[in-house]
Amino acid sequence: MKVIIVGGGAGGISAASNIRKLDKNAEITVITRDNNVAYSPCAIPYVLSGKIKSFDDIIMKKPEDYKKKNIDVIIESEVTQLDSNNKTITYIKNGKTYKMNYDKLVLSTGGNSFVPPINGVDLDGVFHIRNISDGKKVQKWAKNAETAIVTGAGLIGIEIAYALKELNLNVTLTEMLPQIVPRSLDKDMADIITNYLKLEGINVFLGEPITALKGDEKVESACFGDGTCIAADMVILATGVKPELKLAEMAGCEIGRWAIIVDEKMQTSVSDIYAVGDCVESKDLILGSNTISHLGTTAVRQSKTVARSITGKKSKFKPVLNSMVSKVGKLEFGAVGYTTSFAQQNNIKPVVEKVEALTRARYYPNAKPMDIKIICDSNGKIIGCQIISEERVAERIDTMTLAITEGLTCFDLSNMEFSYAPTRTMVTDPLVIAVEEVSKKFN
Amino acid sequence: MKVIIVGGGAGGISAASNIRKLDKNAEITVITRDNNVAYSPCAIPYVLSGKIKSFDDIIMKKPEDYKKKNIDVIIESEVTQLDSNNKTITYIKNGKTYKMNYDKLVLSTGGNSFVPPINGVDLDGVFHIRNISDGKKVQKWAKNAETAIVTGAGLIGIEIAYALKELNLNVTLTEMLPQIVPRSLDKDMADIITNYLKLEGINVFLGEPITALKGDEKVESACFGDGTCIAADMVILATGVKPELKLAEMAGCEIGRWAIIVDEKMQTSVSDIYAVGDCVESKDLILGSNTISHLGTTAVRQSKTVARSITGKKSKFKPVLNSMVSKVGKLEFGAVGYTTSFAQQNNIKPVVEKVEALTRARYYPNAKPMDIKIICDSNGKIIGCQIISEERVAERIDTMTLAITEGLTCFDLSNMEFSYAPTRTMVTDPLVIAVEEVSKKFN
Repeated sequence: MKVIIVGGGAGGISAASNIRKLDKNAEITVITRDNNVAYSPCAIPYVLSGKIKSFDDIIMKKPEDYKKKNIDVIIESEVTQLDSNNKTITYIKNGKTYKMNYDKLVLSTGGNSFVPPINGVDLDGVFHIRNISDGKKVQKWAKNAETAIVTGAGLIGIEIAYALKELNLNVTLTEMLPQIVPRSLDKDMADIITNYLKLEGINVFLGEPITALKGDEKVESACFGDGTCIAADMVILATGVKPELKLAEMAGCEIGRWAIIVDEKMQTSVSDIYAVGDCVESKDLILGSNTISHLGTTAVRQSKTVARSITGKKSKFKPVLNSMVSKVGKLEFGAVGYTTSFAQQNNIKPVVEKVEALTRARYYPNAKPMDIKIICDSNGKIIGCQIISEERVAERIDTMTLAITEGLTCFDLSNMEFSYAPTRTMVTDPLVIAVEEVSKKFN
Repeated sequence: MKVIIVGGGAGGISAASNIRKLDKNAEITVITRDNNVAYSPCAIPYVLSGKIKSFDDIIMKKPEDYKKKNIDVIIESEVTQLDSNNKTITYIKNGKTYKMNYDKLVLSTGGNSFVPPINGVDLDGVFHIRNISDGKKVQKWAKNAETAIVTGAGLIGIEIAYALKELNLNVTLTEMLPQIVPRSLDKDMADIITNYLKLEGINVFLGEPITALKGDEKVESACFGDGTCIAADMVILATGVKPELKLAEMAGCEIGRWAIIVDEKMQTSVSDIYAVGDCVESKDLILGSNTISHLGTTAVRQSKTVARSITGKKSKFKPVLNSMVSKVGKLEFGAVGYTTSFAQQNNIKPVVEKVEALTRARYYPNAKPMDIKIICDSNGKIIGCQIISEERVAERIDTMTLAITEGLTCFDLSNMEFSYAPTRTMVTDPLVIAVEEVSKKFN
């Protein structure tokens, strides 16, 4: 069996490894535009800030390492043609054109940074961050910069803003919506992080879209919807990702509202073509509708499913909840499921409670406050959870991810058993306190 | 309604508060032998070690605070009679005898330290630790001691041994079984902690019971089954807890193998008498048989159920898994459900896997190793999980507690969604790595 995988990101390279684990004989080829595979784009902010020493450290494997597994990795190559009738692809490497045939093809083409259609995005000093080479450019430019604007206050935007601040730049984080992390957090929770960022010396400018970048050759300022212009030596566009769909379209794969439509085996509408990662749509666990899940974990998990599908094993990629976590400075925050406003937009009448608890017994040194918000539907079924603290957020999000996946209500989780030690948590876990409080709203 | 609660520990005092929340008018009286209520016995080791400054810090509320909630707390009093026919109790305070009648009675009589029937347990310098006054005695004696033996290597034993070591005593921890934490951990996992304790300078002596304490007035040495004698200026007996059942027996409550039998409303076999905490048996979630759950969290959770029962609300205390966590020095460890040997003793053929993963992305600074053991039954249903690491154990145990409670298999959890950030966890969570590995054993 000849398997070609287009794209060497988290989805593509993991698909190659996972197929190899299940089939010792398949001929596996990964073709990627990039000059690296198996690196962690989520780690770029931490290389910028200096927490991780070098970009080399976040490259976990080299193409040669895959050679040992008998996986052929062709880097710096662009797949230009996909003929699904004849099951061939054409790619260009070093100016030469090559043709290959496949039995099974995996599209793991990822996405490209969305560049807002405004004047000045081509100026020097304007960056987006998708891969290591973007990261290196930012790192180099930042050495001679004093002020930076990061626009788009999703996770990457916030993490980059914080990293640049740690390099002692004067940083402004901007977002066209009136809050940061709009996809995952309610405004009141997001504002806790905004206030922390401000305390740490980051300027936060909300509620206005970026409308133009100005400068003479290199960027000098960014202007916003309300006419405000802010001077900056560099601008990072963290304004989202657009799935790369050219090859899928060429092959005739069905495309949904945002990206490639796949079934639960990660198969597209075209036979023998599969797709994973940022270029596909996923099912939403709560409503069952289609959604987009731009998470490395989703891509890695899909790669396991696609490997099982291609090798003829039972496989089913389950709907997603887009569980996420991040840490900026001392503050860890995470979320899973729907925000209050997303629920409302989807005709769910949310029942919501927010509590403040502690991460350890009250009397134990260094107990940290923990803010927890629980969102239920009108029957008490848990549909969302948001947590902010200085510690121990991620795993609580995971517990709630499991609870939502299992369709549990706040009543089910009230008085649930949790582990306890005064050094580690409160005798009644913060999550239980939160679900007990939201339960009261149903009395 | 007149409610009398006998015992002011975690179960009793929480029952009083929870009843008050649900019934503004009930006459609530708590009678306790102790001179404190609402303190955290789990915190005693951390006062001994000096991490928490004083025993006063672990007293969360005083009897006066309950007065404000219109709860009468009678301290330093012994209930000597319980007449369930006439619904009265008799108690002695300061030598005087009082009689009170009740509509509902809650037995929260807890347990007493089990003292092994050996010579020398009455010598000076021999202690057990159940309450603050025990803790103060140990604290005082330790000031003039150079060597200590702690016998019984459950959680309390280990935590006390570590605390005394932090006071620079030469400490030996002994256990009659061939491993520490025998109730919650498999030997291979327990040995990781044993090795750590040894590295920290604690002597660990396993596999022999204590047979005699020797000394002239004050203890000078402890002798063991194999004839070994170890010199010590003090000996702590952490050899378990025996439920206090006198009043329950007096009232004619049904007693099981270990403790008072209660139904899911926490009601004993005698009408209008309820019981919670260390003096009752609980249902085991996996086999449905009776078990004993000497955890503060169980007592607190039962107190919520009993409050609902007494005030006529729907209530059901669910079976337990005895989820636990502790931290000694840098090492955090936790467990939930059955150990391999407990499963075998109960005619379950366990399928077991142990993995070592990391607490963060491999390339992120300070990623710590994490050992995880998963125990499944022969159908793949998860029945136990044990985790050791320097961080982030407790909440993973909680996720697995929920998974076991929901009856999930290792196949269900394979490829489950987990939150991810390189700062916080691996792209495939250690728990997923572990369940995927154990799943392979079913192929």
